Amino acid sequence: MAKLVECVPNFSEGRRPEVIAAIVNEVKSVTGVSLFNVNSDGSHNRTVVTFVGEPQAAKLAAFKACAKAAELIDMEQHQGEHPRVGATDVIPFIPVSEVTMEECVQLANELGREIGEKLNIPVYLYEAAAKQAARVKLPDVRKGEYEGLKTAIATPERRPDYGPARMHPAAGATVVGARQFLIAYNINLSTSDVNIAKKIAAAIREAKGGYKFCRAMGVMIEERNMAQVTINMVDYTGTPLHRVFETVKSEAARYGVNVIGSEIVGMVPLQALIDTADFYLRLEGFERKQVLEENL
Amino acid sequence: MAKLVECVPNFSEGRRPEVIAAIVNEVKSVTGVSLFNVNSDGSHNRTVVTFVGEPQAAKLAAFKACAKAAELIDMEQHQGEHPRVGATDVIPFIPVSEVTMEECVQLANELGREIGEKLNIPVYLYEAAAKQAARVKLPDVRKGEYEGLKTAIATPERRPDYGPARMHPAAGATVVGARQFLIAYNINLSTSDVNIAKKIAAAIREAKGGYKFCRAMGVMIEERNMAQVTINMVDYTGTPLHRVFETVKSEAARYGVNVIGSEIVGMVPLQALIDTADFYLRLEGFERKQVLEENL
Repeated sequence: MAKLVECVPNFSEGRRPEVIAAIVNEVKSVTGVSLFNVNSDGSHNRTVVTFVGEPQAAKLAAFKACAKAAELIDMEQHQGEHPRVGATDVIPFIPVSEVTMEECVQLANELGREIGEKLNIPVYLYEAAAKQAARVKLPDVRKGEYEGLKTAIATPERRPDYGPARMHPAAGATVVGARQFLIAYNINLSTSDVNIAKKIAAAIREAKGGYKFCRAMGVMIEERNMAQVTINMVDYTGTPLHRVFETVKSEAARYGVNVIGSEIVGMVPLQALIDTADFYLRLEGFERKQVLEENL
Repeated sequence: MAKLVECVPNFSEGRRPEVIAAIVNEVKSVTGVSLFNVNSDGSHNRTVVTFVGEPQAAKLAAFKACAKAAELIDMEQHQGEHPRVGATDVIPFIPVSEVTMEECVQLANELGREIGEKLNIPVYLYEAAAKQAARVKLPDVRKGEYEGLKTAIATPERRPDYGPARMHPAAGATVVGARQFLIAYNINLSTSDVNIAKKIAAAIREAKGGYKFCRAMGVMIEERNMAQVTINMVDYTGTPLHRVFETVKSEAARYGVNVIGSEIVGMVPLQALIDTADFYLRLEGFERKQVLEENL
């Protein structure tokens, strides 16, 4: 298998198709990069682009898209519901195959330096690439958003990691980082009482004393008259699927409720499924290269 | 993903390295085929070659290897512990990706016809490719072995599916077929009493009323002072890993014994692991294309 990273840049434009197309075309123009998905939201006025490629190719694609966004998006004119600090708001790198988190951190540093030096856009490093504890979480880095950061950037505590300590006049600032793959995971309950789902969500989510890499809410799925625990697994290597599933099962039993099913929404890395099979079958010494398809 | 089949021909030569190399070189000479493994056994006087490739390329590699074996192996001189009917004893095709069992049956028929017509070797079709119930199982097709089949082949019930109704003077006969991927799977018990492993093996194996696609024995693993149920899963799509694992766990509990682990020996198709995760997480509507790596 080749070295591959996923890159999911978010751009502050979700309404003008020609601008979105111009940015996406920069990604498509790079050899060794495969475009997976483009998702634009008008009320957020934001577009999320997902692509996969070899590390250096992915970095080049991210840089070119960021440069195009700086050319076509004016943050002075931007309005939308979603928090943001720049035309290219955030660029995370995610390890996919044969790549470590450390390599993604290195890639984020390289890209951050290039955006700072060549595009004159201030860059903050976040998540695994953060250089300070106060910059690990994206909401902390985006505090005050574009408008507030215009003055705050001059203070020592908001000084960017790369680039000038002043906002780019049109493109604002960009947050670059490295993180694990996020798995969107829902667990369905044999009850229509959404409060049970909310209590279970509170029990498993980090914020309330639950699992470190688990964000969860209890919601009602009206068309099935069913309560659901909806989860973002932000690092399945630290908090695995099976552990969250088993904990939800056990917490639900306390209310006489069963887990009737679970759903993986969108993509899941192969390793997360291998880890699940490994846990339940109590595998001894299983190696990924034993998967037939890994050898083709 | 490309259309891929695995092919695992068995040759009646496990002692002369130059003969084995000549046969293997025929496989290597075909573009579009990847050699996975060559395993020779002196006491069996037999070599098992494993390769993967596009269906037509795999068929060509199998034909060329079979032709070379007919040239270099004289069954009149062959002795070994393992049952066999010919220089190329058996050639199974196994679906790997984007290929159905029906396509593998078709491939077995094409290869069988070519071996019969071009090499004048009688061919029997077995397993999923069998044209009669009495030829599904390999031991039934090999009854009497090379020596016995020399006369039996003239009888109506042993008439080959392709090729002449007489043995090739040096290469004997060849059995060609299609089957599912075989998973070698062991389940380890918290006991040193091999009789418990034997009783559990009897409970799960087809021959004793257990699962249709499960062959099992109870054995003692001396270096761990541990009893083990050792299993061949001959069709994981019909009898899945999780079902056998859970049944062994439940049968072991009847003796106050726990399952302390399990082992997958060698290769396993990705789908078998996906099916395991799907079962235990009670997944709803999961599709293989949601595996990130399947999209690369």
